[in-house]
Amino acid sequence: LQTLSDQSADLSGLVVVLVRPRNPLNIGAAARAMSNFGVRQLRLVNPYAVAFREARSAVGASDLLKKAQEYENVADAVADCGLVFGTTAVRNRTLHHPVHQLNAETGELVRQKLANGNVALLFGSEKIGLTNDDFSHCHWLLNIPTQARHISMNLGQAVAVCLYELSRAGTEEPASKSETPVTSGEMEKITQGLLEALHASGYVKPGNDAMCEKKVRELVIRFGLDAMDAKVLLGMVRQIVWKLRKD
Amino acid sequence: LQTLSDQSADLSGLVVVLVRPRNPLNIGAAARAMSNFGVRQLRLVNPYAVAFREARSAVGASDLLKKAQEYENVADAVADCGLVFGTTAVRNRTLHHPVHQLNAETGELVRQKLANGNVALLFGSEKIGLTNDDFSHCHWLLNIPTQARHISMNLGQAVAVCLYELSRAGTEEPASKSETPVTSGEMEKITQGLLEALHASGYVKPGNDAMCEKKVRELVIRFGLDAMDAKVLLGMVRQIVWKLRKD
Repeated sequence: LQTLSDQSADLSGLVVVLVRPRNPLNIGAAARAMSNFGVRQLRLVNPYAVAFREARSAVGASDLLKKAQEYENVADAVADCGLVFGTTAVRNRTLHHPVHQLNAETGELVRQKLANGNVALLFGSEKIGLTNDDFSHCHWLLNIPTQARHISMNLGQAVAVCLYELSRAGTEEPASKSETPVTSGEMEKITQGLLEALHASGYVKPGNDAMCEKKVRELVIRFGLDAMDAKVLLGMVRQIVWKLRKD
Repeated sequence: LQTLSDQSADLSGLVVVLVRPRNPLNIGAAARAMSNFGVRQLRLVNPYAVAFREARSAVGASDLLKKAQEYENVADAVADCGLVFGTTAVRNRTLHHPVHQLNAETGELVRQKLANGNVALLFGSEKIGLTNDDFSHCHWLLNIPTQARHISMNLGQAVAVCLYELSRAGTEEPASKSETPVTSGEMEKITQGLLEALHASGYVKPGNDAMCEKKVRELVIRFGLDAMDAKVLLGMVRQIVWKLRKD
């Protein structure tokens, strides 16, 4: 079985920057989503000190969170990044910044840029998001398409959604189906068993045999059984027929 | 500027089912993500009572959360749904359920199914996820592609990521499907009828009830019945049960 690490994108150059986060749960949630999607570099700009301390000392805090770096300003936090995205709930924040919607194309674009260097993804504080000053450090804005009336996402959830999209594997695997198909002969045994039960129970009316047989056969075909299911179903039907005959 | 409501998919038939959630913050987070992505129907199966109360009474709790419905079991919670997904972190949970990866194709598939009826998305409890018994009510499993070493996502973040993918604006044409899908409630009637016949015929051995019930339910789900086939099959099963009871 192919493991996910084989498929998923290399996000080692992706940097998540939380600007002035205030809630330790959100800091922890951001770190957890990073672990889920294989992103390692977490940076915090002026976090609320108590919140950062609590998040780091929480039970089960990840290594990633413990290694998170703290910066006094956005400029320093993104200094080594070739492309800086500012996330925003608003779709038309400033005329100066191209706004990219989070979607498959944007994800692909980011993965291309990652081949050339670090890419930063900035998330603002829970209350006010990123400021115009923060945006001045951004090349592009990134908008998660949400409902017009409920645009503002929870910080941890916004991080999860962005990283899910960016980590998307280029080519997706179809769901595998490994079942052994059932033979027509086996299906016919089920059909005949079921027909016998229907006869014994009075479901089949006189003169209606042929029609009923056709109906049952087509139904059993539509069940789309695999070999194992067919065996189980045949066992059930035979037991019922045995009981009906016996009485 | 195009607003999102113009582009985004119609998810009015999508039902989010939280099974045994224990953390009020996660319940609130799930509801918030639903608001973000335009999903309205929240159902909870056996939530931890204190958690549900706290989530509902939290400042800023959404209307959606206040209208959330509570159920005692999964069967009732999904009774009106034609397709039931169980979310799982594990990629190969059981051989009996097709596992779909969350991706663009799966999203498109769900949107097609939504054109024909309700679709349920089940999320398990924070600690243990969904149980095998929960899975027996599911048609398909849905896996969010995460890193092999950090597969388990936070509940609120998992909900957000799934709804982000499902709400993705579909430029794709909906495939036409004329069949009316069968609801889980109708399938459960077949399951219960077949179980009664199996009891009456001696197929079910003492102490084997629960296992057998699960086996039958999964088998009936795999039949992939449409509404008409389900009606026919239910009629057959009921006639057989009537006869078995009578003798």
